[in-house]
Amino acid sequence: MSKPKNVLWIMADQLRFDYLSCYGHPHLHTPNIDRLAARGVRFTNAYVQSPICGPSRMSSYTGRYTRSHGATWNGFPLRVGEPTLGDHLREIGVRPVIVGKTHMVADTKGMEWLGIDPGSTIGISISECGFEPYERDDGMHPYGPYDPDPAYNRALQEAGVEGDNPWEEHANSAAGDDGERLSGWLLKYANLPADVPEELSETPYMTRRAMQFMEEAGDAPWLCHLSFIKPHWPYIVPAPYHDMYGPEHILPPVRAEAEKVTDHPVFRAFIESRICRSFARDEVRERVIPAYMGLIKQIDDQMGVLLGWMEERGLFETTMIVFTSDHGDYLGDHWMGEKDLFHEPSVKVPLIVYDPRPEADDTRGTVRSELVEAIDLAPTFLSYFGGPAKPHILEGRGLEPLLHNRAKPAEWRQYAVSEYDYATRPARQAIGNAQEEARLVMLRDGRWKYVHAEGFRPMLFDLQTDPDELHDLGASRAPEHAAVRARMMVALGRWSRRHHNRITLSPEQIEAMTGKEPPGILIGFWDEAEYEAEFGKPFAERP
Amino acid sequence: MSKPKNVLWIMADQLRFDYLSCYGHPHLHTPNIDRLAARGVRFTNAYVQSPICGPSRMSSYTGRYTRSHGATWNGFPLRVGEPTLGDHLREIGVRPVIVGKTHMVADTKGMEWLGIDPGSTIGISISECGFEPYERDDGMHPYGPYDPDPAYNRALQEAGVEGDNPWEEHANSAAGDDGERLSGWLLKYANLPADVPEELSETPYMTRRAMQFMEEAGDAPWLCHLSFIKPHWPYIVPAPYHDMYGPEHILPPVRAEAEKVTDHPVFRAFIESRICRSFARDEVRERVIPAYMGLIKQIDDQMGVLLGWMEERGLFETTMIVFTSDHGDYLGDHWMGEKDLFHEPSVKVPLIVYDPRPEADDTRGTVRSELVEAIDLAPTFLSYFGGPAKPHILEGRGLEPLLHNRAKPAEWRQYAVSEYDYATRPARQAIGNAQEEARLVMLRDGRWKYVHAEGFRPMLFDLQTDPDELHDLGASRAPEHAAVRARMMVALGRWSRRHHNRITLSPEQIEAMTGKEPPGILIGFWDEAEYEAEFGKPFAERP
Repeated sequence: MSKPKNVLWIMADQLRFDYLSCYGHPHLHTPNIDRLAARGVRFTNAYVQSPICGPSRMSSYTGRYTRSHGATWNGFPLRVGEPTLGDHLREIGVRPVIVGKTHMVADTKGMEWLGIDPGSTIGISISECGFEPYERDDGMHPYGPYDPDPAYNRALQEAGVEGDNPWEEHANSAAGDDGERLSGWLLKYANLPADVPEELSETPYMTRRAMQFMEEAGDAPWLCHLSFIKPHWPYIVPAPYHDMYGPEHILPPVRAEAEKVTDHPVFRAFIESRICRSFARDEVRERVIPAYMGLIKQIDDQMGVLLGWMEERGLFETTMIVFTSDHGDYLGDHWMGEKDLFHEPSVKVPLIVYDPRPEADDTRGTVRSELVEAIDLAPTFLSYFGGPAKPHILEGRGLEPLLHNRAKPAEWRQYAVSEYDYATRPARQAIGNAQEEARLVMLRDGRWKYVHAEGFRPMLFDLQTDPDELHDLGASRAPEHAAVRARMMVALGRWSRRHHNRITLSPEQIEAMTGKEPPGILIGFWDEAEYEAEFGKPFAERP
Repeated sequence: MSKPKNVLWIMADQLRFDYLSCYGHPHLHTPNIDRLAARGVRFTNAYVQSPICGPSRMSSYTGRYTRSHGATWNGFPLRVGEPTLGDHLREIGVRPVIVGKTHMVADTKGMEWLGIDPGSTIGISISECGFEPYERDDGMHPYGPYDPDPAYNRALQEAGVEGDNPWEEHANSAAGDDGERLSGWLLKYANLPADVPEELSETPYMTRRAMQFMEEAGDAPWLCHLSFIKPHWPYIVPAPYHDMYGPEHILPPVRAEAEKVTDHPVFRAFIESRICRSFARDEVRERVIPAYMGLIKQIDDQMGVLLGWMEERGLFETTMIVFTSDHGDYLGDHWMGEKDLFHEPSVKVPLIVYDPRPEADDTRGTVRSELVEAIDLAPTFLSYFGGPAKPHILEGRGLEPLLHNRAKPAEWRQYAVSEYDYATRPARQAIGNAQEEARLVMLRDGRWKYVHAEGFRPMLFDLQTDPDELHDLGASRAPEHAAVRARMMVALGRWSRRHHNRITLSPEQIEAMTGKEPPGILIGFWDEAEYEAEFGKPFAERP
């Protein structure tokens, strides 16, 4: 049998945890993903470190909280010198490859300070968040300066799809009765088929690219991050996926009137934003959700293609396979659209880990409810490849104890943490908050979810009695709720005060320095006799 | 009149705030430093960001708290990519030059990740904390691998001082009656003269080097960081400074029996360390303090030489001159030796700023008692040179409003903050604490000093009723003290939760992104009409 030596890390974009049949969706059948779950471990409490693409991904790719890496919103560059999973893997001879989306923005100013050419090998690696870009594609190719010439567009053109920007004009548009372009940017057209042959649409294309990479990769170990750009908006999917689901498959929105009149300024400002008002409309949900489900169904079918292809080549023997997402999608729940806040549909993600090692045989098909964070994957991968633990850099916890059913660590984490910086959001403008104060932090323990809102009262949900998070107890006068809030605030304080940037020395290096001075340095010795008493040798023989 | 365009930033090493006559020392007359104070502003509440060389300096050189830059103890490398004052100055055409000590340790692993050759121009800059090393000298040149071949040793040899390591054998030794070496590492010999001609000892040497730099510098603007290695131990000084002060000049130790039996585990562990037990002995204080005073007197005399030389050349018209220190020295106060904790003799430093600009004419010779932090200097310098404010990176506050007597900012800082990581200290071993928990944070407001000790009770001092900090109120049951502690803990929480690493975008850049999506991106629009209503133009004309 071949030795485990690769990782295929598949990430969907904006996939809610509960829109897969293995996670309980009653109408959306995802047998291929479910089969992966049957061969691996499925985590039911996996949280991203920020409920928005950029910071969530920067956390996943660095193994660090957003307050540590500092790229706290989309388009905020990840600082040069922030160690990435790619850095750790290259160090031990593993190729870290990206096929698809990262949402990385390069820190060009930092590179300038360090004299690094962005076009050099190292400059490209820094610009790609430590990955080797087999194919980088963030999925948005509108006209305008945003990602003007993606390889995907060229591939469409080579396959005969016409236009200067075939993504915009075909993959992201439907055709009207007279051939006119009906843009996928508009929710009204989400029920129409994208005007591109299914096999040329984004998900099958990127799946093929991952298979091409694996075919070319040779024997050296690799981590391939296959990062789909769907089911993220624009919500439009080619036939036959565009009309697989109808009104009868749409689950009712999870929301309460009381939420709509919340007195929480931040929640209220989000609810009142244009996007959320849009998703509060039934017609929007009725057009968007079937398309969203179709996009997921397409991913599942492509997972079938991919996993079958891997099976045929024996890659299940050598490859850890992870399926997850970068955050969810409210889809109108809680009167919200998009993501941004910390309700379960937004901040919880599916996470399935198939581990080829025999130590995982006992856990195949099992489900774990421990609090898991997206930043746990980086240390899990590093350990899988035989790399050193780096707890001074990687703030997550390796999942091996759960994957291998070893005695549960005496102390698994008590809290999952997620952060959100709404400095750039219209909600911040609406409430007139200062940029640097526009901060939210979620702490979730086994029962409670606490959301600290800088400058405002917190939000609090009891997931035991209120699993749908409809009753905000952040202002409750009940003593038990006040006690929970106080306990959570203490925990937040402890977490905030921790070292988040003491990354240049390992615990072993610090231990080796402890209680010692550099050679030749003597502090506070009175005379030769004191020296001899301390070191057991004559002063004259000191270094 | 010439235009202000240079900064001379003079730092003494381990100089207590109160061992200068302008700060009230009754026996140690420092007329030259006092004259600088008479021409500038003298700050009486200036605090370093960590009471130990390395992290204090890394804070001064980056303008950032130690929790932000992560180099939390001596020998902890400053991470590559941490922006330094040097980076900010080079960007606006100012040469940042070091003459003397920085305590910088290069992040060789970070450079390896980024493919930077430590010997390249940029690699040297990174290794020197952003400075151009006109002469780097951290002042310790014992035998052994520590700084084996300093230019200072070579200069001594050229001047005829003999030996393989003339610093160790002469500048840091006295000669016994039979010519034997009596090492400056041993406190017992602190009363003897260093066996080196005074003009060749460290302080005059480094002063001359700064003058050489200024002479060679030409017309381009510069910041010269003249960083003396004294009065830091080894406590030994050449004649005539070795016997200028006697027992009659030694102030009694500031300490109380109650401190010695403190129940605070961290304070107790420090007091019980070998170094502190040493400084609790009268014979140690009586030998060390006169030498310490002699080293300061020598600095003052050299300041006279330097400032006179600058005056002759008109450099007072073009040069901001700052005199400060990196932390203090307990000298037996509070039963402590060295520094490390947060009593005033350790964490407070002298700070004198001479500003050549006419706007400062009204403040010459004034004294300010506002809470000032060492990290305030970096933004002060950047502003002086006409550079942009960078509040997303620089965590200090520019001192111009105080230097120019402009209306006091509506809200100057309420708290000065200092941090200490005792992970490597014997005290940590003594109390059996975990490396990552060995953290202290001081918050000082106008009246109170609060020291948070992770995992232990805090310490609290009322500087109004107890300016000598002899009564620790950290466990006091008085309601007023409990209320102060609670208030300080809230302030610590706010400070800890702040962004400390969101450094890649300026407030202006974030403001420009606020409420906008990247060109071509549309989220949550139902149809063309909604687009037109929002943007006031037809959907077909979108970018």
